[in-house]
Amino acid sequence: MIQEKIEQAAAILAELDIDLWLTFVRESATTRDPALDMILGANCTWTSAFLISRNGPATAIVGSLDARNVRDHAEYRIVTYTDSIREPLLAYLEQLDPARIAVNYSLSDATSDGLTHGLYIMLREYLAGSPWIDRLESAETLMAALRGRKSPEERRRIQKAIDITLDIYDGVGEYARPGMSEKDIQSYIRGRLGELALEPAWDRDHCPAVFTGPDSAGAHAGPTDRTIEPGHLMNIDFGVRCDGYVSDLQRTWYVLEPGQTAPPEDAVRGFETIREAIRAAAAALKPGVEGWTIDEIARRFIVEAGYEEFPHGLGHQVGRAAHDGSALLCPRWDRYKRSPYLRTEQGQIYTLEPRLTVKGRGIATVEEIVAITETGCEFLSRPQNELFIIT
Amino acid sequence: MIQEKIEQAAAILAELDIDLWLTFVRESATTRDPALDMILGANCTWTSAFLISRNGPATAIVGSLDARNVRDHAEYRIVTYTDSIREPLLAYLEQLDPARIAVNYSLSDATSDGLTHGLYIMLREYLAGSPWIDRLESAETLMAALRGRKSPEERRRIQKAIDITLDIYDGVGEYARPGMSEKDIQSYIRGRLGELALEPAWDRDHCPAVFTGPDSAGAHAGPTDRTIEPGHLMNIDFGVRCDGYVSDLQRTWYVLEPGQTAPPEDAVRGFETIREAIRAAAAALKPGVEGWTIDEIARRFIVEAGYEEFPHGLGHQVGRAAHDGSALLCPRWDRYKRSPYLRTEQGQIYTLEPRLTVKGRGIATVEEIVAITETGCEFLSRPQNELFIIT
Repeated sequence: MIQEKIEQAAAILAELDIDLWLTFVRESATTRDPALDMILGANCTWTSAFLISRNGPATAIVGSLDARNVRDHAEYRIVTYTDSIREPLLAYLEQLDPARIAVNYSLSDATSDGLTHGLYIMLREYLAGSPWIDRLESAETLMAALRGRKSPEERRRIQKAIDITLDIYDGVGEYARPGMSEKDIQSYIRGRLGELALEPAWDRDHCPAVFTGPDSAGAHAGPTDRTIEPGHLMNIDFGVRCDGYVSDLQRTWYVLEPGQTAPPEDAVRGFETIREAIRAAAAALKPGVEGWTIDEIARRFIVEAGYEEFPHGLGHQVGRAAHDGSALLCPRWDRYKRSPYLRTEQGQIYTLEPRLTVKGRGIATVEEIVAITETGCEFLSRPQNELFIIT
Repeated sequence: MIQEKIEQAAAILAELDIDLWLTFVRESATTRDPALDMILGANCTWTSAFLISRNGPATAIVGSLDARNVRDHAEYRIVTYTDSIREPLLAYLEQLDPARIAVNYSLSDATSDGLTHGLYIMLREYLAGSPWIDRLESAETLMAALRGRKSPEERRRIQKAIDITLDIYDGVGEYARPGMSEKDIQSYIRGRLGELALEPAWDRDHCPAVFTGPDSAGAHAGPTDRTIEPGHLMNIDFGVRCDGYVSDLQRTWYVLEPGQTAPPEDAVRGFETIREAIRAAAAALKPGVEGWTIDEIARRFIVEAGYEEFPHGLGHQVGRAAHDGSALLCPRWDRYKRSPYLRTEQGQIYTLEPRLTVKGRGIATVEEIVAITETGCEFLSRPQNELFIIT
């Protein structure tokens, strides 16, 4: 997979008319650069430069003690140093004399923004007085394409993670009973992960995230001792990591009250509004559209149905990370920077995850995963078409 | 521990005459900022600002969906936003009007360099036109003091990690036999970690690192199928994480040849040169010295004994990370930037880890851990005084 991505990067460089992609890192176990997941699959301790050009061998300039580890993980021409990376880096640039150098930082996209500011200062110091100092630019477009365009093997791995997640969700539906706590559900899911020897897709402490009733945090928080109560909604946000690729899916359940045989109308209406918002967004999703236009379809659908607007984007890409890359299906809010304006591409894989609050009951939220095809998109997750029931 | 560190940070701000420490982060599960280990103990998804001032409450400006998770982990006054962090951040600065703002980036120290360059650009955009844009500086001195000055409880946790590591090393000595592979030793150590339900101190794939014989990588690489052979040296670099704090220790063994009852003179001399280099360095280590002077004592000792100079620093700090913070006992090489010139302080905890090559046999390297006291230093690790034997 690493070799495939390095070759893909060289092709995207040609497409964008960029000469060189420089990924500059150090102590990457301490300050992670997500680019290394694509082009190395390991960490570097000393200051290191990974240099992928349109032509010529991919080159890694690394500390002498890191050389073996780099060699074990990917096929780079390796140049080592002990005292300073400055001389071998300048020697490389001298030989290639690139007109455009894309560097691993980005205003908009955290997954393309692994370069720390201290490393940026260091790089500028090394290049001071050389012609290359004025040729640096963000690698975000390159990295977004590299991360976003999934190969068949990448898609197969994501599909596997999705299928396992949905299977675990089926198990949750059989296991969950009123009176159990959010932490009980977490324990059940952790048990399933343990049996499968799999890791969760993000931080263990809120993957799974389990939210029950109207008083729960609703997102980005860990399960509590709050119990599953009749008349409430329960939703779970969860994914697994399989062979380096992840899923990220949400499902919603209603807890029947004594005597009820079906969920009440307000809960059903909340769920169906979410389901239809997802369907409407998916119907419009295809290559070449700006993400905010898709977000707006789902957002407007929910607001027009009388619910409050959801305080986040409709969808993000998934891949090596649960939040995997640049283009987002999100509103044109300042905090999203350029992301809502980037155009979708065939081969990208997105979540669709609107939410709304059903007063007095909790949050209704469903998260599906779709892949962009030549003319539209297709669901990789078997969609949740009905509100699940806990009895 | 988090609350203790936040209070300690406020005191160090006063000592350094800095008004505000700003830690600016986003998607910290994707691009880790090691500062969060000290002041939050969790990750943030949206762009977030952690603001610790000399006076007044520690404040966190976070996305609305991150608020609960932040509240669950630390005692901040929490301000939330949905669209942009700009307005609440400017409102905070307006009220405090800090003259000096220390920000989470550093040229020299990776553990103080969590701010990505994209986030730095974003911060400057938010502050454009305000007086505060010209008041930003690196927080490295503040963060180095905060990370370096271990509290009694931090030291207790590191001691526990050290004691467990040395106990596992005792077990390795009993387990290892000629003909076993480096991977067999790794499996043994992983088994012990599993029994104790502990994580290794750094990347699983080279913690433990196991090196046997003259052809091994010698550092920063994972165990291979290479076997333990009579006449060779084996060394291991390993540590564990206990309650959030780590150890980092190395030990060296000699593999007896048939008929030998003791290691040969060249192996003993290599080992004893390392041992004496450590003793000489430790004898000089005390508060207020520049790290390079301690490195030089060990380095010169080894070179004067006729061995090649080791290609790395003599020691680094340990704490929440195996490479924990700014000041290093290292040579004045370019790649170490300011680190060799920073002065030692009481309460810091350092490794001492020189190495040398014994021709035809392998690497002799020992790594001890010492704490700086009021007048000198004391060993936290029971030192390796004799070359261990595998029979």
